[in-house]
Amino acid sequence: MSLTVKTFEQLLLTNLQKKHQKLVVACADDDHVLDAINTCYLQGVIEPILIGDSAKIVSLLKKNKLNLNHDSIVNVQDRIEAAKKAVEIVRANSSSILMKGNISTRDLLKAVLSKDKGLPCEGVLSHVAIFESPYYHKLFMVTDAAMNIAPDFDQKVCILNNAISVAHKFGIALPKVAVVSSVEKVNPKIEATVHAARLTQMNEQGQINGCLIYGPLALDNAISVEAAKNKGIENPVAGDADIILVPDLNSGNILYKSLAFLGGAKVAGIIVGTTVPIVLTSRADSEESKLWSIKVAVSLCN
Amino acid sequence: MSLTVKTFEQLLLTNLQKKHQKLVVACADDDHVLDAINTCYLQGVIEPILIGDSAKIVSLLKKNKLNLNHDSIVNVQDRIEAAKKAVEIVRANSSSILMKGNISTRDLLKAVLSKDKGLPCEGVLSHVAIFESPYYHKLFMVTDAAMNIAPDFDQKVCILNNAISVAHKFGIALPKVAVVSSVEKVNPKIEATVHAARLTQMNEQGQINGCLIYGPLALDNAISVEAAKNKGIENPVAGDADIILVPDLNSGNILYKSLAFLGGAKVAGIIVGTTVPIVLTSRADSEESKLWSIKVAVSLCN
Repeated sequence: MSLTVKTFEQLLLTNLQKKHQKLVVACADDDHVLDAINTCYLQGVIEPILIGDSAKIVSLLKKNKLNLNHDSIVNVQDRIEAAKKAVEIVRANSSSILMKGNISTRDLLKAVLSKDKGLPCEGVLSHVAIFESPYYHKLFMVTDAAMNIAPDFDQKVCILNNAISVAHKFGIALPKVAVVSSVEKVNPKIEATVHAARLTQMNEQGQINGCLIYGPLALDNAISVEAAKNKGIENPVAGDADIILVPDLNSGNILYKSLAFLGGAKVAGIIVGTTVPIVLTSRADSEESKLWSIKVAVSLCN
Repeated sequence: MSLTVKTFEQLLLTNLQKKHQKLVVACADDDHVLDAINTCYLQGVIEPILIGDSAKIVSLLKKNKLNLNHDSIVNVQDRIEAAKKAVEIVRANSSSILMKGNISTRDLLKAVLSKDKGLPCEGVLSHVAIFESPYYHKLFMVTDAAMNIAPDFDQKVCILNNAISVAHKFGIALPKVAVVSSVEKVNPKIEATVHAARLTQMNEQGQINGCLIYGPLALDNAISVEAAKNKGIENPVAGDADIILVPDLNSGNILYKSLAFLGGAKVAGIIVGTTVPIVLTSRADSEESKLWSIKVAVSLCN
């Protein structure tokens, strides 16, 4: 059974805990990031810990007239060291989450995935984007649009399980997963369709649980009951997907950007697969998107 | 210089010739297809020649109360033979175009590509989708979202040249081509980015002409000047693309469906690469989309 939530406002009304969750920012010397953090701080959503070059951070806070307390700054000038420090704080503090600042995703993830000093990760880390689209009847997720380039079958299972966990935390007991490709039939020349059929079968046989999986589907069949009917597809997932599993990074990222820039959708993006969600926004994201990303991450904490 | 045309209405006002272009339909026993043809016929855009099972076609015309003249029907009951007949008529008649009816794309294209009796094709056949999006300042094309599964570099050059020809026919002397992928930098692990860099270089060196090519770009940088600026990309193509070349069928089809079903866009789809455009609509396409596809194809004829 799906929980039909149409907007981020509704989602967070139920799920956002109004407590001072700590937001640990790796390399906080980034005015876009600081601005979003400032807003969340003023709304009482988070308590920031800003790791990075103290002088630069203070100067940006002053320049942008932000209210963040300078006491929250931990001065670590080297970016790699700042990322390590951020991860160390998150490791030690169960009510904290990590956010990427002015550091490359690669360098941040290196600190996160460090064997001795990183965060525990059993499967793979993956990106989950949650969309509020004016053209769909509920929120839906797309994975993986930002991290894994060409996941093999086993990695797709991990990516899927990561997204399913997010859905469960949001109260969707049995999320509907559409495994999308370019066609609705299995075509050995299109690996994603073969993966889709295997995932569907594993779900039917109880090897992947806590969700309803169906595929291969073209995207229209995943999100439009009418389009699915036109193709003769009758399945509870068709036209009502909660999670869209894409073939690879190219198709996922293009879908993400299409929804955000050519579809009027609002989006929140997080990295999951370790103990705490990681907020990872990019400069191209809107201010609103950065806010939703932080709030969604906070709401996913226990 | 780009011709900034925002809507299909505007595009066709300039380009649609009000003459009786012949529309040859392979296997016309399809009520969706007949309905679109009927509308175009009443608007004086086309003169239909309906190939297929005469009894079935007549029955559908009556059932749907369509005005199409029964004299326009050529009775060929077998689907494969009907496709061959349609191609034969198009070959013999320079002011005619081909449309797919109730036959698989594969079977129709087999007739089109027949060595002796098909239509001439120098490079590859490819699909061009033209979009009118409420979120973009002009019409733009996406290629290839419906035919070529995983085009190699040489095939991408052909696909690109096919789309450039369409742009030229619509009066865009120097169409801006964005070669999109998931990232803006060349990454040897993502083949599409390597292809993009090579295409850009070939364009700079005058090996691909009649256009401005730039890539790799993520989709947002291709269609949003602001997103491009945020990434430090300064290029005339960034944020102002006329043509979006996608990595493969999965990413192209997902983009197509996202725009049409989650982006409020209107779309026209045709197959190009031979002497005449081929109208290829699917049941999932809206009525409006079928009309635009026929009209766009007609307007591309000499």
